[in-house]
Parts: sequence; structure tokens; C-alpha cells
Amino acid sequence: MIKKISHIAVVVPKLDKAMGFWVEALGLELSHVEYVEDQGVDVAFLPAGESDIELLRPVDETSGVARYLEKRGPGMHHICFEVDDIEAMLARLKAHNILLINEEPTIGTGGKKIAFIHPKGTGGVLVELYELTTGEPARRRERLIAMRQRLTEGRRIYATGVRAFFSGLRYGRNGDE
Amino acid sequence: MIKKISHIAVVVPKLDKAMGFWVEALGLELSHVEYVEDQGVDVAFLPAGESDIELLRPVDETSGVARYLEKRGPGMHHICFEVDDIEAMLARLKAHNILLINEEPTIGTGGKKIAFIHPKGTGGVLVELYELTTGEPARRRERLIAMRQRLTEGRRIYATGVRAFFSGLRYGRNGDE
Repeated sequence: MIKKISHIAVVVPKLDKAMGFWVEALGLELSHVEYVEDQGVDVAFLPAGESDIELLRPVDETSGVARYLEKRGPGMHHICFEVDDIEAMLARLKAHNILLINEEPTIGTGGKKIAFIHPKGTGGVLVELYELTTGEPARRRERLIAMRQRLTEGRRIYATGVRAFFSGLRYGRNGDE
Repeated sequence: MIKKISHIAVVVPKLDKAMGFWVEALGLELSHVEYVEDQGVDVAFLPAGESDIELLRPVDETSGVARYLEKRGPGMHHICFEVDDIEAMLARLKAHNILLINEEPTIGTGGKKIAFIHPKGTGGVLVELYELTTGEPARRRERLIAMRQRLTEGRRIYATGVRAFFSGLRYGRNGDE
């Protein structure tokens, strides 16, 4: 029922600084970035094989991710598995009396279904389950095209690279979007 | 240069209890288990797509993993990336002034080359790099065959399942190996 590790989420205080390690030094590529309003975070996806490293940068200081960062410091936040049938997986976990954060899937951006398993149910790991819906790949492609346009349209942004792009994105969001 | 996420390591106090979540409830399969003497840990591999969840159970109470467990509690410990050329990757990281735990690769079991990047160099994540050598797949196959024989040879072990097998492995190692 588990297809793969979808992503490993890593909490970072600043996206531009994090890019200095994950992209510039380690050599991963940035495929996708967005602001997830209901979680109050900027999210950047860096593919590694069939999975992603997902960088989470809290924007809203009252968000769960911001509280996590304050309490535990930067580092790994959760593992997300892609499953083929999230309802069946949740039923299976309930049958094993595993403590869930979401008893039913919630609908995320793009219509994808997600649910979290409580760390108390897994032995200390926050686990996300994720069922990809048909709309998600198209939505990501659109976002990527938009991001690439932003990266290449402004000569200044293009010239100063990814770090500066993120600095600009951070401070310029309200003006740009 | 990064081929994929090789594994996500999770520290657990007891392997048999951890199997209750990862195998019995979540439905992952156990592919491989071994005692890694120089790290003082039992290691169990549970494939998820092209990657593994690697459960680490400290045996030696003075090991780094045991100290981690005492300090931070059970949970995610490190991310390991498979790379095609570990020496080239380490040279690249040094060129970016990333703090390394191993400046040169160390040779692990089966001849594989491994090196750790310090969490201070990555923004809070312990990152392992791993270059698969030709001997490793054959070594794993041999280990798996031996484990399966142990799982199926004893009627008692077969009848009482994976959890009991691990309890037995834990207490019976010195007698068995």
C-alpha cells in the first residue's frame, strides 16, 4: 500500500541560507516552491531520486512549524509516504490502535489527500500519508513554469542566483502576488 | 551526483516494539537485519520504494546512537543519500566549507564507502553519504537468506511472528552467532 517515500521535511529558519547547503553545496535541484497558507510556511522541493527533500520555512510565527523550530531547533520534521489508498491505510492503522492526528484525510492544495499519524503512535516520528490525486502533477507543472518565469524574467534575479531569488521572494511576496 | 535517498534512519528503543508500528500496522516489509558492531547497534531495513526506513536500536549503551536516544528520545536520526562518487562529493562539500564529520570516506561492512556531514554544516540534519560498492548487494542477499532460514527453521519462531523473532534475536544473539 506504501508506494514510496514522498518527501522528508526539514525545518529551516531561512530558505535562502538553506539553499546554500542543499542546492549549492550538495547539488540538489530546486523543482518547486510555494507558500502554503493554511500551514503558514514557505515550502521548497528538492528532488533526490523518486523522493524530495522538502524545506519548510515558517512564515507565520504562530504556526506549528514555527513552534517546532523554536522548541527543537532546525532539522528533520516529518516523513511523508505516498500511498495508493489513504482511506484504506487509515482504516488499517485504526485497526492496530495507532494514534492518528487526522482520523479522516484532509484535502490539501491541489486536491491531494493528506493525513498525519501522531508521533506517539509511531515511536517518535511524525508521519504524513499522502495520496496523489490527478490534479496535483498539473498544478505543480504550472507552479514550476511560473517560478521559472520569475527566475529568468528579471535580469537582477537571474544574475544573483537562487539565494538572492529567495531573499527577494521572501520580502517581495506581498508586492508580487 | 546524488542518486537517491538511500535510507532514513530512525532510532528506536526496542526493535520488536518498533516492528509493531512499521511492519504490522503500516505494512512495510522487513528485508534485512544485522548487528553493526562498530556502531553498537542492531539495524533493520524496511524498503519503501527505492529507499529504506532503517531502524537503529542501540545495543551498546556507550554508542553514539544510545546517547542520542537518551538525549533526544526516539525519532529520526539521519538521512543517507546514495552518491555515485563519494570522494568527488566530499571534495565539493569542502570547497563550500561545509563541516564534515569524516573528511575521507570510511569503509563500512561489505566494503561500502560512507561519510557523515556534521549537522552544523547542513542546518541541523545529520547527513550520511554512501557509495554502494559491488560487494554490497551480494552481501545483503546472503544475510537475507540466512535471516529467512532462521525465521522459518524454528517452528516456534515461525508461529509467533516477527516481533517474537526479534525478541529472540535480541536475547539469543550471543548464543546464535
